[in-house]
Amino acid sequence: MADIQSLLSVREIKALDKNGSDTFASVLLVRRVTSKTAKNGNPFLTVELGDKTGSFAQNVFGDSPAFDLFTSLREGGVVRIEAKLDYYRDALSPKLLSAEPITTDQLAGSAVLANLVETAPEDADALWTEFQQHIAAIRHPDIRATVQAVFDDIGESFRIAPAAVAMHHAYRHGLLEHTTHMARAARALLPLYPEVDPDLALAGVLVHDTGKVIEYQGDLVTTKSRRGLLQGHVVLGYQLVRKAGMKVKLASDLLERLEHIVLSHQGELEWGAAVIAATPEAVFVAKVDDLDAKMGMVQRLLRNAGENPADEFSEKHFGLNSQLLLTKPKTQTATST
Amino acid sequence: MADIQSLLSVREIKALDKNGSDTFASVLLVRRVTSKTAKNGNPFLTVELGDKTGSFAQNVFGDSPAFDLFTSLREGGVVRIEAKLDYYRDALSPKLLSAEPITTDQLAGSAVLANLVETAPEDADALWTEFQQHIAAIRHPDIRATVQAVFDDIGESFRIAPAAVAMHHAYRHGLLEHTTHMARAARALLPLYPEVDPDLALAGVLVHDTGKVIEYQGDLVTTKSRRGLLQGHVVLGYQLVRKAGMKVKLASDLLERLEHIVLSHQGELEWGAAVIAATPEAVFVAKVDDLDAKMGMVQRLLRNAGENPADEFSEKHFGLNSQLLLTKPKTQTATST
Amino acid sequence: MADIQSLLSVREIKALDKNGSDTFASVLLVRRVTSKTAKNGNPFLTVELGDKTGSFAQNVFGDSPAFDLFTSLREGGVVRIEAKLDYYRDALSPKLLSAEPITTDQLAGSAVLANLVETAPEDADALWTEFQQHIAAIRHPDIRATVQAVFDDIGESFRIAPAAVAMHHAYRHGLLEHTTHMARAARALLPLYPEVDPDLALAGVLVHDTGKVIEYQGDLVTTKSRRGLLQGHVVLGYQLVRKAGMKVKLASDLLERLEHIVLSHQGELEWGAAVIAATPEAVFVAKVDDLDAKMGMVQRLLRNAGENPADEFSEKHFGLNSQLLLTKPKTQTATST
Amino acid sequence: MADIQSLLSVREIKALDKNGSDTFASVLLVRRVTSKTAKNGNPFLTVELGDKTGSFAQNVFGDSPAFDLFTSLREGGVVRIEAKLDYYRDALSPKLLSAEPITTDQLAGSAVLANLVETAPEDADALWTEFQQHIAAIRHPDIRATVQAVFDDIGESFRIAPAAVAMHHAYRHGLLEHTTHMARAARALLPLYPEVDPDLALAGVLVHDTGKVIEYQGDLVTTKSRRGLLQGHVVLGYQLVRKAGMKVKLASDLLERLEHIVLSHQGELEWGAAVIAATPEAVFVAKVDDLDAKMGMVQRLLRNAGENPADEFSEKHFGLNSQLLLTKPKTQTATST
Amino acid sequence: MADIQSLLSVREIKALDKNGSDTFASVLLVRRVTSKTAKNGNPFLTVELGDKTGSFAQNVFGDSPAFDLFTSLREGGVVRIEAKLDYYRDALSPKLLSAEPITTDQLAGSAVLANLVETAPEDADALWTEFQQHIAAIRHPDIRATVQAVFDDIGESFRIAPAAVAMHHAYRHGLLEHTTHMARAARALLPLYPEVDPDLALAGVLVHDTGKVIEYQGDLVTTKSRRGLLQGHVVLGYQLVRKAGMKVKLASDLLERLEHIVLSHQGELEWGAAVIAATPEAVFVAKVDDLDAKMGMVQRLLRNAGENPADEFSEKHFGLNSQLLLTKPKTQTATST
Amino acid sequence: MADIQSLLSVREIKALDKNGSDTFASVLLVRRVTSKTAKNGNPFLTVELGDKTGSFAQNVFGDSPAFDLFTSLREGGVVRIEAKLDYYRDALSPKLLSAEPITTDQLAGSAVLANLVETAPEDADALWTEFQQHIAAIRHPDIRATVQAVFDDIGESFRIAPAAVAMHHAYRHGLLEHTTHMARAARALLPLYPEVDPDLALAGVLVHDTGKVIEYQGDLVTTKSRRGLLQGHVVLGYQLVRKAGMKVKLASDLLERLEHIVLSHQGELEWGAAVIAATPEAVFVAKVDDLDAKMGMVQRLLRNAGENPADEFSEKHFGLNSQLLLTKPKTQTATST
Repeated sequence: MADIQSLLSVREIKALDKNGSDTFASVLLVRRVTSKTAKNGNPFLTVELGDKTGSFAQNVFGDSPAFDLFTSLREGGVVRIEAKLDYYRDALSPKLLSAEPITTDQLAGSAVLANLVETAPEDADALWTEFQQHIAAIRHPDIRATVQAVFDDIGESFRIAPAAVAMHHAYRHGLLEHTTHMARAARALLPLYPEVDPDLALAGVLVHDTGKVIEYQGDLVTTKSRRGLLQGHVVLGYQLVRKAGMKVKLASDLLERLEHIVLSHQGELEWGAAVIAATPEAVFVAKVDDLDAKMGMVQRLLRNAGENPADEFSEKHFGLNSQLLLTKPKTQTATST
Repeated sequence: MADIQSLLSVREIKALDKNGSDTFASVLLVRRVTSKTAKNGNPFLTVELGDKTGSFAQNVFGDSPAFDLFTSLREGGVVRIEAKLDYYRDALSPKLLSAEPITTDQLAGSAVLANLVETAPEDADALWTEFQQHIAAIRHPDIRATVQAVFDDIGESFRIAPAAVAMHHAYRHGLLEHTTHMARAARALLPLYPEVDPDLALAGVLVHDTGKVIEYQGDLVTTKSRRGLLQGHVVLGYQLVRKAGMKVKLASDLLERLEHIVLSHQGELEWGAAVIAATPEAVFVAKVDDLDAKMGMVQRLLRNAGENPADEFSEKHFGLNSQLLLTKPKTQTATST
Repeated sequence: MADIQSLLSVREIKALDKNGSDTFASVLLVRRVTSKTAKNGNPFLTVELGDKTGSFAQNVFGDSPAFDLFTSLREGGVVRIEAKLDYYRDALSPKLLSAEPITTDQLAGSAVLANLVETAPEDADALWTEFQQHIAAIRHPDIRATVQAVFDDIGESFRIAPAAVAMHHAYRHGLLEHTTHMARAARALLPLYPEVDPDLALAGVLVHDTGKVIEYQGDLVTTKSRRGLLQGHVVLGYQLVRKAGMKVKLASDLLERLEHIVLSHQGELEWGAAVIAATPEAVFVAKVDDLDAKMGMVQRLLRNAGENPADEFSEKHFGLNSQLLLTKPKTQTATST
Repeated sequence: MADIQSLLSVREIKALDKNGSDTFASVLLVRRVTSKTAKNGNPFLTVELGDKTGSFAQNVFGDSPAFDLFTSLREGGVVRIEAKLDYYRDALSPKLLSAEPITTDQLAGSAVLANLVETAPEDADALWTEFQQHIAAIRHPDIRATVQAVFDDIGESFRIAPAAVAMHHAYRHGLLEHTTHMARAARALLPLYPEVDPDLALAGVLVHDTGKVIEYQGDLVTTKSRRGLLQGHVVLGYQLVRKAGMKVKLASDLLERLEHIVLSHQGELEWGAAVIAATPEAVFVAKVDDLDAKMGMVQRLLRNAGENPADEFSEKHFGLNSQLLLTKPKTQTATST
Repeated sequence: MADIQSLLSVREIKALDKNGSDTFASVLLVRRVTSKTAKNGNPFLTVELGDKTGSFAQNVFGDSPAFDLFTSLREGGVVRIEAKLDYYRDALSPKLLSAEPITTDQLAGSAVLANLVETAPEDADALWTEFQQHIAAIRHPDIRATVQAVFDDIGESFRIAPAAVAMHHAYRHGLLEHTTHMARAARALLPLYPEVDPDLALAGVLVHDTGKVIEYQGDLVTTKSRRGLLQGHVVLGYQLVRKAGMKVKLASDLLERLEHIVLSHQGELEWGAAVIAATPEAVFVAKVDDLDAKMGMVQRLLRNAGENPADEFSEKHFGLNSQLLLTKPKTQTATST
Repeated sequence: MADIQSLLSVREIKALDKNGSDTFASVLLVRRVTSKTAKNGNPFLTVELGDKTGSFAQNVFGDSPAFDLFTSLREGGVVRIEAKLDYYRDALSPKLLSAEPITTDQLAGSAVLANLVETAPEDADALWTEFQQHIAAIRHPDIRATVQAVFDDIGESFRIAPAAVAMHHAYRHGLLEHTTHMARAARALLPLYPEVDPDLALAGVLVHDTGKVIEYQGDLVTTKSRRGLLQGHVVLGYQLVRKAGMKVKLASDLLERLEHIVLSHQGELEWGAAVIAATPEAVFVAKVDDLDAKMGMVQRLLRNAGENPADEFSEKHFGLNSQLLLTKPKTQTATST
């Protein structure tokens, strides 16, 4: 994996002249493997490969050296391929020249991962360090201990989970990023709303979405888990908090208020809230969540458009319900006057 | 008006023993005056008097010394009465002993005003001074000048207007309070969202609701004005900003973005937005508005319940769509451990 | 309490000639007691008394022999009064001649309770006996043990709770009645839908609403409890089932499915479901719940109208969204042909 | 048609190795025939052929021996083809070797029909025999005669119609199956709800959807008919019942109640009900309809997934608004203890 | 009934000095009669009397000469009373001096009827004459004959029915007025939309609401009838048209289109349409209906406000969803320039 | 451009025998030009060409004589091509033989324009002449001058703009056509509703949608402009009217009413109205707009189906929410009897 620079992304492969016959190398995620049997009785596989820029499918026949490799790999595996550009019936379908698996260890030490799946733009380690400080900022010892117990319980998975499958912060580390951003916003706002208990509110922010660690499954390819489909992240998060609070013996008045923040943070029943926010802290957390979720959509659209967007407006965004203006305000000209 | 302490509020008058016959003095707001004619051809008035604790109606006949006084007073006038407690058919209906008008000047120098209508809990002068500082914090000179021009235009009325007729910050100075609170919140959050232009966003916060100065009318008794009913505060505020921006010659790119914040701040079309927020600043202002509006409802419920609320929960609140838990979290016991 | 026959209900008291001056006896529920202070400094109480046919309020002054009695009684207490009919300002306001408390024990042995609050028309003991048989009909030992553990936990309160504050089966024993009716319906239907696991479905029926035992509070006067307002009966019932299942060590696959029935039984998110039904058993229970809830509304309207209803149609019923035709179909005439 | 076993379904044809050149035989439904003219002036046809597993389109030119055959066949006709596997531009496009029509008579005596269109899993004849028994179970002679007259009127078409185009029981015999299932459910429940007149309710169940016989058209390919689009099955069913009731001279009170069941069975106005259910029988039928419709969706998803489903959950189902858990509960392990 | 001028309306009675003791005469509608029994066993009646300006209730005891009169009168009867002004517990409760029934014949020849119930402002006879001309304007003989047959069937009742219980044209003759106004509008618009068949559209306009003649009952006091509650005016009107079309042997294509106009004229399913408009004529009639309904609300608000309305805006109107500006535009000043 | 008859539309090109190799000529609109770079470093363009019957994309390489032409043309340009039929991977991809630009001047004098984009069926010049007469029909001089000033301001663009991007009158000149049709309808109806001021209503009709001239951009290819996205046509039209009224010094009462018509004409807040109609004129214009919009959808469906539509019903139309019956009523047969 020395020469990552020469690896092509799917977008780059598709940008090649379709009528050409280039060879290329690429590191790709195995999104799906389906076993089939040809009319002559021979088995073959249909393999979908991709990265964060796109994907394509191709057949791997039993006499191919890659057949065994893809048979053993599962959804979410990673391979390095060399191939010759080819199209079959209008769809990219390269001829495999070689294929070798990339192990989790190799990935961990490489910049390739960032090409496979979209990742939070901020450094995950720095976010996690900051996150610890937000926990430490809870002054009430039992509330702090409860929050700590939740994260001791769910551990590493919180760091890499996305905050959603398709909406705001829907990318690797997105849950950590969203929660950390909410903690920053909450701590900036709490001095302005003294009727909101700062310890409960900050704790509520930190744990509000932890149920998503169970609701979503898959390291590189995210889907909803069985528990996610049968209970939903609101109830799952409530259960995590309840378990931690019981363990820590958090006073029942406080535990009930903390659970209530989790149960109500989705804002409206039809958006999945189990109940409507009925404490100052719960109203506050639900609104900070809504604000950062919407701002996260804005940030992602601007980031994907880059510094000099080709279009003045984005496509219509489902979550914002509008097309976002992508160009910056022309404040420089004016202030230079 | 020397002895304000001995004046009774409507709530206090109604708390008197109904079967008693006390006399009392009170300063009250004239809410409505209706002219009628008795069967014998004599004119009489039905006058509704009240303060922020309640109201009652009574007839004033042509031979009463107060008849001329109430004929000349209009909705929104203020009177000092002395009367003898009486009930007529289950409704408070005191016998007037004397009635004299209170002038705007007298009111201005008195603590009585605060008894007549609900007022923002924070000091209006301090809020206004702080408000000037928020305007001054806009660094872009033309944007700042535009905001200044809006407030030069609408002047004093912004200081006393309520932010709503029946929902959040729906009391005297409520608009100033809500806007100032939003400016505080916006300035606390802006460092966290660098893709939001701070000058445009702060300017947007300060002017977003200025159309309400025209939408609402009446100094002490608030109703919607003709322009409010025919155009709505969103379009009226847009027009104020447009006029100011044209006068100041704000660059069209910036003026368009500032106008857009006003047009979109209500969030959803069905809540009265003319368009959906489509710039980072407009999304930001709409969400900060929503957050402070909801927190304002929380604050008012807690304030009205007092330190030791009689009930654990408020009545169901239409805006919050829930009953608010009124008691404070029991964090003291725990932290003392 | 020998002569219950001569006790008048509130409806009967109000039916007396207003201008008369009859004396009467009545056993009534104390709905609310408010302490006030008269202008002369003497304390008095405003007491609201009622039964299932109506209510009225009256003042009890400090020099009344009943003053101490009502001071000690709380919301939900029961009294026997003798009084002289009187009206004050168009409202029933009898003159108390005597008042004595009725203890819970006295009530238990008397037919009076049925006059104070609306009660399920079926005998509560018979319903409870039948209910045990429904539990026993669950063949899977661990599922049955889980259900048994839930009812061991909540105990007696399930027997008397209403199924709602204002809608279907909203009366004493209504929850027991509704759940028993659902069990009957489910057991009649299960042979027709073999893809529904009968043990899980029957268990789901029996426990689906148990959270209401915590959501509602008050023996004779029902309101929502703090936990009801902060968590809702869906989450509270889920927690009861989870606790019982853990205790009994129910296999996780089965416990998850049973919890899912509770979490999804409200049908739609906006009606309070935490998730949408996603197992055959959950779809089945949600639909049987909806069917018996609607039929319960029909039954109550017909019961209250009596055999020969004065009107052909009921008032518009909020839950049914229609006026119910109250007369029976004329099938007799035809069949006699 | 001797060797049906060797006929391939469309799914099986598509599973052949695309790069192979097998020949195969198949019996297929003509879904659509479009006449076109080539640039050289020669006419050709685009013919869409399919069965319940899929479909494909191919051109038939004027010089093909099959040209006359497809010219004469209409949408809904059936053919037996022999062909050589071929793909044209990524789409299955076999080369026709021979094609011959299958007559309705041939179909009637063959197992092929079940391969062409999805059919109710239960035997249609057995369902129909049972259906007669449900009619016979109505004790009131005039109500029973009215129901009989409806089915005498619409005759055979009721037996084969689907219950919907795209939702529950949307397959051949689906209407008969759904109605029969509802009759079973209703008769199981009626003893539990004595305020529901059993004869009216059962009659209502049997006739509630008969308007669909007119609303849908086409024997093997179902679309909405003109009357279906202009009146809808609710009004059409009402008209059928009204006509039958008038003929039988059913007492007006009973006919009106029976018509009301048909008019209200869709439950809500926005789902197509002409009025909201306002009799005990109408509420009952609407709820039993809803229950069996939802359970029919569950049954179809489980049936299509088979005994050992490849996925734990179905795709999201529009009618259930969820992904259904397809695996059975693991009750065996536990009960074997 | 010579001196109608001296009869007082309820509004005028209530405007009398409450403390006075005038006697007055009035002709009033009996809205409700309830039989009661006093404690002493004597029967008495509670009678609600009113006219279009208001109503009041009073007791009539068995020893009153009016007791027999009110016992024999039913809801909707009319009486002439002489009485002495009195109030009982804050409610108007005159002392009856005499009461005599007014027969339908007497009413017919008197201007009193217009005081009892609100009536269409246009002359009913003129409207009816015009209405005949609209029928005659249908050129297609069978369509015209069908429309004629509908009105031959329902006869006189169409002339006096209101168009609604509480919304547009909700007053005596309102249905005739609304339908005639729609016919005027349709005939003015038809030349502009040549794709709309004028005969079908005009016929559709004339019969679209005829079901209301059955849906509403009561001559002077309007409620929904049993058939109205069980079938609704859309289906009832469809049935009337179908019966007439069958009788006249209108071609099935045309009858189906005419029925479709009736079934779809409510516009949306949730507003009661059985199907959505799917012919040019049905779209046209639904939109003309909507236009005239809304304009009828405007006309009624302006009419009730009079030439010089006391308020600039009406109260918020439920149907218009706004407060209507009641003053006329100041076009005179400008045009005089 | 002599031989327009021999030019093929895209629909005609696609109807050619795919396996043939015809050459053809066509005049087409450039819908989109995208610059790409081949693997070998050579630039090429992907060009989307189309007319009102369809479109296709093809690559133009750097060595093609057409490369410079398409580099210089922008979205919305027009070209005449000669090409040889070819398909590439199942998509039309002709081989370009020659390409030359068509200038705006050439287009103006040719019938080709009508083939490129859908156009209002009525003659644009005749519509514009009629439109002037509607302006002239406003009798009030200042209102008329205001309307004239609006059209002086926006000028030519009003004549060619579509009335929508995807719904009613969504084609070239569609805005002029819709507005003219509304003026005809309004003038036909105004004599029937004398409470509507005819000058204000007619002026409101003429200017109500003028904001669309700014909201939409592009001569032949229509998209929403920046101002359209940030302010919406309602506010933009309001601003146009306000500017014109200020210039003409229209009396404020009248200007406010005219502005209100523009602000409210969308009918409901969720459809984009800034306020709900609150004057007789605004209610009237909103309803006439709704009527003509719906009728415009009907007209377009019938026009596109032609005299003898192949199908009895249209596809389901999003705006009408139904499938339209396309065949004419059979009134001839009947009347000939």
